[in-house]
Amino acid sequence: MTTDSEHPDLAALQRRLAAFAAARNWQPYHTPKNLVAALSVEASELVEIFQWLTPEESAGVMSDPGTAHRVTDEVADVLAYLLQFCEVLGIDPLAALEAKIDRNEFRFPLPQEEPGEGRGE
Amino acid sequence: MTTDSEHPDLAALQRRLAAFAAARNWQPYHTPKNLVAALSVEASELVEIFQWLTPEESAGVMSDPGTAHRVTDEVADVLAYLLQFCEVLGIDPLAALEAKIDRNEFRFPLPQEEPGEGRGE
Amino acid sequence: MTTDSEHPDLAALQRRLAAFAAARNWQPYHTPKNLVAALSVEASELVEIFQWLTPEESAGVMSDPGTAHRVTDEVADVLAYLLQFCEVLGIDPLAALEAKIDRNEFRFPLPQEEPGEGRGE
Amino acid sequence: MTTDSEHPDLAALQRRLAAFAAARNWQPYHTPKNLVAALSVEASELVEIFQWLTPEESAGVMSDPGTAHRVTDEVADVLAYLLQFCEVLGIDPLAALEAKIDRNEFRFPLPQEEPGEGRGE
Repeated sequence: MTTDSEHPDLAALQRRLAAFAAARNWQPYHTPKNLVAALSVEASELVEIFQWLTPEESAGVMSDPGTAHRVTDEVADVLAYLLQFCEVLGIDPLAALEAKIDRNEFRFPLPQEEPGEGRGE
Repeated sequence: MTTDSEHPDLAALQRRLAAFAAARNWQPYHTPKNLVAALSVEASELVEIFQWLTPEESAGVMSDPGTAHRVTDEVADVLAYLLQFCEVLGIDPLAALEAKIDRNEFRFPLPQEEPGEGRGE
Repeated sequence: MTTDSEHPDLAALQRRLAAFAAARNWQPYHTPKNLVAALSVEASELVEIFQWLTPEESAGVMSDPGTAHRVTDEVADVLAYLLQFCEVLGIDPLAALEAKIDRNEFRFPLPQEEPGEGRGE
Repeated sequence: MTTDSEHPDLAALQRRLAAFAAARNWQPYHTPKNLVAALSVEASELVEIFQWLTPEESAGVMSDPGTAHRVTDEVADVLAYLLQFCEVLGIDPLAALEAKIDRNEFRFPLPQEEPGEGRGE
């Protein structure tokens, strides 16, 4: 599933996570209910980084190396639990997202395609 | 937008999401602070599906078509906001996850690596 | 603990919630783990109301009657689950908060008490 | 700041929190949007304590002094941000909860009110 380059592949990372948990006998803890709780906890740890920042300050978090590392680390945690949740329930996250974008393009059509207009809402 | 096969690609979906938001002029709303709040809200909508279930019931949610659709839809929403958050901050989610798994293999070593034992990787 | 006036009392509301759940045989669902998940879901429903608002817009939500009702309703839900969680674990929320404020006054002392100064952090 | 007895009062604690924030010039940070984000973060810190526990284990958390203290501390944090949120928006949390319970008694009526049966209120 890894393509060609040095770039990791989502499905390969999902398999690595599954093997990692299996090797440590963590599967009994990895019920869908527990994994989704852990996912929401990690998402909140991302929120915590931003909770007192202005919108402008929030746009500049990556310029501080320490904060950049923390943000990147929490992104990894959210993605890890999302993939493990998908693994135990047999959900294909990329297919799910593609289907959702298709539906959203129908739900939020561009009002008109005239040049220089194209505004949504 | 998919690469070659029938399988969508994470980076392609991320670009589709960015184009979708840009075409609707949603970028002013898509501050990192707002996107991470939306991410946590979607994660909680996943939690809501499981909040009163026993661990056993939680493992069987995909056998009901309505619940399966709802779960899959929320997975898509979580992934969508995570990718949009990464987009505005220039974070590579796959590289972030790969680095995290590498660190976790160091933090949580397998107790022993005797032949025929080490079930991981 | 005020009982006489028209004002409802926290402990009385906590007892009403406990009786309400007991009368409907909801106690088996009301494990601490489930109640805290429900609490976090309700907190996120509050976040959802504010997620795309600017700080200024967020300060004005009560001027729209529909939004004001929604916000007030979610506050009630958060408080309801917090009290039910405290009920099943035997925690006194007011004593917990008083102790926390005491600790915070020690952790975040006022730097100086000179007239016209008094600035924290 | 407590009224008469040894028991703290919700309104008195709410005033103490407001004075605490004002004395440290924290009001600019205490927008409704930020406070509700902080509330959800604290709720998730409670979830984190329970995320890998079985329902049975979750019922026993208070028997470990360290965990009991952590749980009690997070309860205080959730209540503190809820009260500060109510303060800045002028919401009466006890009136909100009382109105909600009234509505819920209408929404979830007891199946039958035969004498010696109705266990509620």
